[in-house]
Amino acid sequence: MTLEDITRYLHEQIPLTRHLGAVVEHRDATSLRIAAPLAPNLNHRSTAFGGSLSAVAILSGWALVQFALRDLGIDGRVVIQSSAVDYEAPVDGDFTATASLPPAAEWDRFLKTLSRHHRARVRVRSTIRSAAGTRGSHEGTYVALRA
Amino acid sequence: MTLEDITRYLHEQIPLTRHLGAVVEHRDATSLRIAAPLAPNLNHRSTAFGGSLSAVAILSGWALVQFALRDLGIDGRVVIQSSAVDYEAPVDGDFTATASLPPAAEWDRFLKTLSRHHRARVRVRSTIRSAAGTRGSHEGTYVALRA
Repeated sequence: MTLEDITRYLHEQIPLTRHLGAVVEHRDATSLRIAAPLAPNLNHRSTAFGGSLSAVAILSGWALVQFALRDLGIDGRVVIQSSAVDYEAPVDGDFTATASLPPAAEWDRFLKTLSRHHRARVRVRSTIRSAAGTRGSHEGTYVALRA
Repeated sequence: MTLEDITRYLHEQIPLTRHLGAVVEHRDATSLRIAAPLAPNLNHRSTAFGGSLSAVAILSGWALVQFALRDLGIDGRVVIQSSAVDYEAPVDGDFTATASLPPAAEWDRFLKTLSRHHRARVRVRSTIRSAAGTRGSHEGTYVALRA
């Protein structure tokens, strides 16, 4: 799937992502980056609403795992179990959330558990950035359930 | 301010809250409840998107603290510092997030620190519920800065 295909999938399946202005702008074997403009995500202080930052970060980790499994030919669904965000500095411009797979040993263990037990859990970190630099971080625990 | 005034304030100042369908539906001295419909917050599984649940919960804690300070005549702004959500069960209907002030001793300490140092931090928990019962919980750390 191309970046455009993944963005379209998100917009169709999770309508709020359209209002967030979320667009998948990069993806490689171990990371996925979602960009969003400031304007639709403004708060009362003219910076990005914490709920928007949280939502885009959650989405980045979810999409990374979901489409990594699809690439491996694993038919499964991914749901979030817990999510934590540290807001390090206000976001006063367009922003991105970049999710990265955990270290290879951890990812391999996740895939093995999923294969054996049809259910496995993985932690994925995302970094929130604006043109000003790193603005925050997210850690999500995602559960995959094999069909 | 009436519930309608607070909802209007949120919709005007934080445009994403309109797309979440967030409405302040209850408020008393120690709690504030925000309701949101499932439809605009659907995910690919026809349950509520984790990012929507997170955003509504963050908003409930923020509004509780912001308008509690306003009622006390304290001119300050409130920003979120960290946020953690546990998703305990899928949300398959309209949902609410109810934020509650911490125990009185903790809240009083927050107000005293804010008065002395013009800056203080408070932890606020919110419970996410649907008609099926409790679906998750949120803990936000909010920082208040006195004008």
